[in-house]
Amino acid sequence: MKVVKFGGSSLANGEQFKKVIQIITAKPERQAVITSAPGKRFAEDTKVTDLLISYAEKFLRYEDTAAIQQTLYERYHEIATSFDVPEAELFWLKKGLQKLQETTYPNADYLMAAFKAHGEYFNARLLALILNHLGIKARFIDPKEIGFLVSSDPNNATVLPETYENLARLDYGTEKLIFPGFFGITREGEIATFSRGGSDITGAIVARGLSAELYENFTDVDAIYAANPKIVKDPYAITNMTYREMRELSYAGFSVFHDEAIVPAIEGRVKINVKNTNHPERPGTMIIPYQEFTPQTRVTGITNAKHFSALYLHKFLLNKEAGLTLKILEILYKYGISYEHMPSGIDDLTIIFDKSQLSEQKKEAVALDIRAALRPDELRWIDDYSLIMIVGEGMRNQVGIMRDIICAISDHNINLHMINQGASEISIMLGTKSADADRAVKYIYEAFFE
Amino acid sequence: MKVVKFGGSSLANGEQFKKVIQIITAKPERQAVITSAPGKRFAEDTKVTDLLISYAEKFLRYEDTAAIQQTLYERYHEIATSFDVPEAELFWLKKGLQKLQETTYPNADYLMAAFKAHGEYFNARLLALILNHLGIKARFIDPKEIGFLVSSDPNNATVLPETYENLARLDYGTEKLIFPGFFGITREGEIATFSRGGSDITGAIVARGLSAELYENFTDVDAIYAANPKIVKDPYAITNMTYREMRELSYAGFSVFHDEAIVPAIEGRVKINVKNTNHPERPGTMIIPYQEFTPQTRVTGITNAKHFSALYLHKFLLNKEAGLTLKILEILYKYGISYEHMPSGIDDLTIIFDKSQLSEQKKEAVALDIRAALRPDELRWIDDYSLIMIVGEGMRNQVGIMRDIICAISDHNINLHMINQGASEISIMLGTKSADADRAVKYIYEAFFE
Repeated sequence: MKVVKFGGSSLANGEQFKKVIQIITAKPERQAVITSAPGKRFAEDTKVTDLLISYAEKFLRYEDTAAIQQTLYERYHEIATSFDVPEAELFWLKKGLQKLQETTYPNADYLMAAFKAHGEYFNARLLALILNHLGIKARFIDPKEIGFLVSSDPNNATVLPETYENLARLDYGTEKLIFPGFFGITREGEIATFSRGGSDITGAIVARGLSAELYENFTDVDAIYAANPKIVKDPYAITNMTYREMRELSYAGFSVFHDEAIVPAIEGRVKINVKNTNHPERPGTMIIPYQEFTPQTRVTGITNAKHFSALYLHKFLLNKEAGLTLKILEILYKYGISYEHMPSGIDDLTIIFDKSQLSEQKKEAVALDIRAALRPDELRWIDDYSLIMIVGEGMRNQVGIMRDIICAISDHNINLHMINQGASEISIMLGTKSADADRAVKYIYEAFFE
Repeated sequence: MKVVKFGGSSLANGEQFKKVIQIITAKPERQAVITSAPGKRFAEDTKVTDLLISYAEKFLRYEDTAAIQQTLYERYHEIATSFDVPEAELFWLKKGLQKLQETTYPNADYLMAAFKAHGEYFNARLLALILNHLGIKARFIDPKEIGFLVSSDPNNATVLPETYENLARLDYGTEKLIFPGFFGITREGEIATFSRGGSDITGAIVARGLSAELYENFTDVDAIYAANPKIVKDPYAITNMTYREMRELSYAGFSVFHDEAIVPAIEGRVKINVKNTNHPERPGTMIIPYQEFTPQTRVTGITNAKHFSALYLHKFLLNKEAGLTLKILEILYKYGISYEHMPSGIDDLTIIFDKSQLSEQKKEAVALDIRAALRPDELRWIDDYSLIMIVGEGMRNQVGIMRDIICAISDHNINLHMINQGASEISIMLGTKSADADRAVKYIYEAFFE
């Protein structure tokens, strides 16, 4: 049994659906299929998920939704037409789109989750319909019916352990099982989605639940690259990498694979193969356990993420104050802010945050509370903060790696906010100004791959 | 007005007392004098503070204390004899030593504090006596009488703000004011000491309280050196450094000046001059505000401290768990343990502790609590952890400094537990095995000073 997941661009139109069906049918063991919502067909196109968000917003604002419903309907209808599926067989889709705004929800967050999730829901039903229409036995798997249970966080859910038991109990023969990605059902029976891009997570959960031998993740690139092709020309394609490497890289910007999807795969020891829907014959990138891995390069990947802000604090004898960090964390907790990293000097502390959590008001409120509680000699926000991650199992205990990184950086006069090495044995983290972040990746890449 | 403080070796015997008196009387503005307890006269000698600790321990164990009292008496008597002070004038000393064991204390910690503090107390009284005997007008300042108030932490007190007001009110003419270092009086009237070596702190507090123009700290070295002379042969003598540099270096092992003593000096903007009692004509090292400082070297000092242990934690999606660090800190707080640094990776966290706080039982208990609360995938104690600090105002925004450090380290195949750069703008912190710590200092020193 292999689990195959397709990204939004792989299911954007009839032509892409045909490639997907060819991939699914090429091997009988490709039995569980996870769908995303249809993505962009061309650069200026709108993803179905974004259309559904517009639909929800219009509905909440009491605006007319007929046109947006029609646009959504057309996206799926166009695909169905490519397979000569008669329009009469799409009645459930028309009804389903209308039903979205006739249902009651606990609150607007759950409404938004339900609207968004239907991009995947409709696409999975459509794929099952088309497969059967083509004479390929396929069954749409409704998360509600099989008990694909998730936590009650409408737009940031996590899987509940029962889901694995429920998946293991699933009874099937040789037919294809078509799962909608991205969402599950709460104990209260509501739809709740994973974070955006979460179909990767659904795939990993299904792979673990069905004890799959392989999780094939089909996307629109040939492989995972050692650096972003937008920064580095023709970067090295990674053939093998470990779960941990993937996790550390995806944290800081490797968007090919959702970072939370790694965990179920590890727990189930399911290998992951990232492949290209448009070139399924190419080997792609294998993500495997550390035990089966031999590093081919000193560094596996280099990436950056630019969505950070930092709070710098200076206070004499700061580190003599027991419970000081505790006070700071309690203040952050009060505002519902989590931090990413907290490098400390003797009398200095920098707290690095994901910017998306911080409004100007929150930043001001946090600063005031910290001033009141700790009276720092200096407190300032640094808004322009990027993190660069250099990751590789091959770097364990190799001080020479650090040397080559620092030489690459200093040869090009890039200043660093921070160096954080050693917390993880397989990665080095640098902090820079966002304006320098891409250059830093480029020069470090050159040091290791050219 | 200048405040002069003398270390234990500067007041170890009559010969040293003579040097001290010469220094005090050389300039009329050297008016406030802080004494330490007599230190070692020769390598195998015992410091008076350690004799007093033995005295307290013997007393607590109901052992006979006559001999140890006599040994203590002899130490001071020997000094008095050098100045032909008749023994009859030392009656207060004999009585004082005996009185120590006739007083009641709130608990054994306060008893220990009172015993220890008398090393300084007796020495200050003796110095005042000798000065007057020599016809130099001097006044012993009793911390209790003038209100030198400290917090109620018997062996780790901090100064209370009223002390500064009380010092400012002190009425004096041209006589020398002889303060005992190391201790103060709690609001309850008990003696409480600063942490060991705390006479430096007393000096800084007096200097601030009396608005001194200079705080001269007399010790047994010509200057503060850029590295420990035990590690580096003939190290560079620092002529000028900033408060912050001193603070960062003294944190990690520069034992010349007590790190907590910097704060009152900064608050009062009192410059500090570290000088040699045996060569008072030499300029020593000036510790000054940043505003008046021009870096002469790229790096000011390099030091290491070997008294650390680290707790390493690994857990997938660790940084997604809001409140996780909070839970860890609450556990540490419960055991009264403060941490020094907490570098974090994506799924990894290392917490660095001062070893002295950790017993094997505490380590085990902390590990169990963290396992119960967080279920980490991996948890281990690293007992062999040294920190290396490279400090210099001259290193602000200079990435080349990091490069030279890393080259020095990697050329000699020294592995690093950790690199922490950027939390402070004027220092870089490295973590190594203790066996490598001295070599690391040596090679880094060579890179910057040879």
